[in-house]
Order: sequence, then C-alpha cells, then structure tokens
Amino acid sequence: MKIEFTPIGTIHSPHLRPEGTPIQPRFAGGAEGTVELFAQYLAGLRDLAGFERIWLLYWFDRTYPAQLEVVPFRDSKPHGVFATRAPSRPNPLGLSCVRLLSVEGCRLRVAELDVLDATPLLDIKPYLPDCDAFEVARTGWWAHAGGTTAADARFSRK
Amino acid sequence: MKIEFTPIGTIHSPHLRPEGTPIQPRFAGGAEGTVELFAQYLAGLRDLAGFERIWLLYWFDRTYPAQLEVVPFRDSKPHGVFATRAPSRPNPLGLSCVRLLSVEGCRLRVAELDVLDATPLLDIKPYLPDCDAFEVARTGWWAHAGGTTAADARFSRK
Repeated sequence: MKIEFTPIGTIHSPHLRPEGTPIQPRFAGGAEGTVELFAQYLAGLRDLAGFERIWLLYWFDRTYPAQLEVVPFRDSKPHGVFATRAPSRPNPLGLSCVRLLSVEGCRLRVAELDVLDATPLLDIKPYLPDCDAFEVARTGWWAHAGGTTAADARFSRK
Repeated sequence: MKIEFTPIGTIHSPHLRPEGTPIQPRFAGGAEGTVELFAQYLAGLRDLAGFERIWLLYWFDRTYPAQLEVVPFRDSKPHGVFATRAPSRPNPLGLSCVRLLSVEGCRLRVAELDVLDATPLLDIKPYLPDCDAFEVARTGWWAHAGGTTAADARFSRK
C-alpha cells in the first residue's frame, strides 16, 4: 500500500546544511525562519495566530535511505531508529514544535527552528499542552545522553 | 510534487467507529490496544521499551477529503483546519502520544489510545519531555473550548 502526500508549503530557515543544524527546537537557540504555505491553503490558517507554539510535520527530503539501527547524535551507541528522532526513518517524517511569532497572510514567522532550509511542509497543528505535554519518568537511553545538540552529515544524502 | 509513504504496521484498538472514539489520548480513559509492526522493521524497535510514552504517526484513512475550515469537536465555531487537530487535513497525518506498556517482538501494547482500529501506522518516535513538553501561555480558541471529548462521524467517509 502506498500513501501519497503533497507538500502544502516550504520551510525557510537559516540552516543551509545538515552540519550544525540544531537537532531539536530546544537546542535551536531561538533561530528564526519562515513557513510559507502555498496560497490555496490560506483558509486553513484561520485562528492559528492565537497559538504560541505549533507542530510542523515535514518531509526529511535529504536523508539517506532508511536505516533500522542508528547511532543518534546524542549517543555513541546504536539504537533502533524508532527509539530515536533520527531522520533516516522508513517514512522520513519530521516533527518539530516551534514558537509562532506571527501570521502574515500565507507566511508564518517562527522561532526555535531546527529544520533544514527549503524543507517540504506536510502539516501544521496547534500545540495543545494538555494533549501534548506529559510528565514521564522513563526516557530510555535519552536520560543518559549527552553529546552534541547539532547535527552532522551522517544521515544526509551526499 | 508527490511524496510516497508506506505503512510500517497497523494500530489495533477498541475504537471500531469514529462515533465515540476519544479525540485525544488525554481523553481516552486508559483505552488499551496493540501496535503491530510489520516484521521487516523489527530491528527498529531496539531500546524502545525504555520509553514510557511514544508518538504514533499514522494515516487518517477514513476521513472525508480535506476541508480547510472545520467546526472541531471541542467548539461550535469554525476554525482553520491547521488551527485544529481535526482529521480532515490536506495531508491526513495523525499524531498521538500514547503510553507504552510493553514491547513483545513486533507487538507494542499501548494505553491511552485514541486511534481507530485498523489504522495504518507510518512512524513511531520516542516521547522526549525536554523536547516535546512546553509550557505555553496562549492556546487560542482551545483555551475556551468545552464540549465533547469523543468524536462523531462529521469527518468520516460514509
């Protein structure tokens, strides 16, 4: 079974190459960018400006083919790709919770952006803390992870 | 541009029809189900069991064609679909943070499940509270929303 998605816009960011791109919004140091929605989807943005943060769902369009075990940026040991946020996934879907600064027509100004420039956007959802923020006691290997908070080229197409 | 994804497994749940299905894990009252990963992806689950919660990304396979403005379950007024979590999106991608009870081979037992039975699974990611849990002051129309916490058939294919 194949499922077809079509980009609804483009994410513009200051991160031009994988090397040095922050691996999560939390590590993006406030980096700003713009999300440009294609004009035919404008009506879908109604009332979005009321939300402080939004989820961006996007296509990791510059990764290698999928790997089922990866050494993620934050650790030196291999883990199953579904136990990591690495981009080289069977379905290379990215998920980032960014800060929404403003909505101007089809352009969203956002901050805390960890996405590569020119990334195809698939969906936007509002961040709802009572549905998305959970206190959890166990976070597996991540609990002991240190290491870098910026990417390198290990998951990137040459 | 078309982007092709392929299901990596199937979500089995007690929610057989849209009517009455909880609209978020938070409202699912502990409902349990299983996520069955197709066997060829087994290696990708390594170390996932250490995480208390996981994100499921999946295809809303029984929605109407996209609507850009919707009256969501929690409100009586229309909003842009990107300002809601309604399923009838241009790219019908679902996102749920469920509780992971156990990993047994390719089968994950999960709880707080708000997904329709037999839904095609696209991705699994670990829930990382320092990357996914944010305190936010502004949540738009949602801040004043009451209403139901269970779905009806308004977004469903007949």
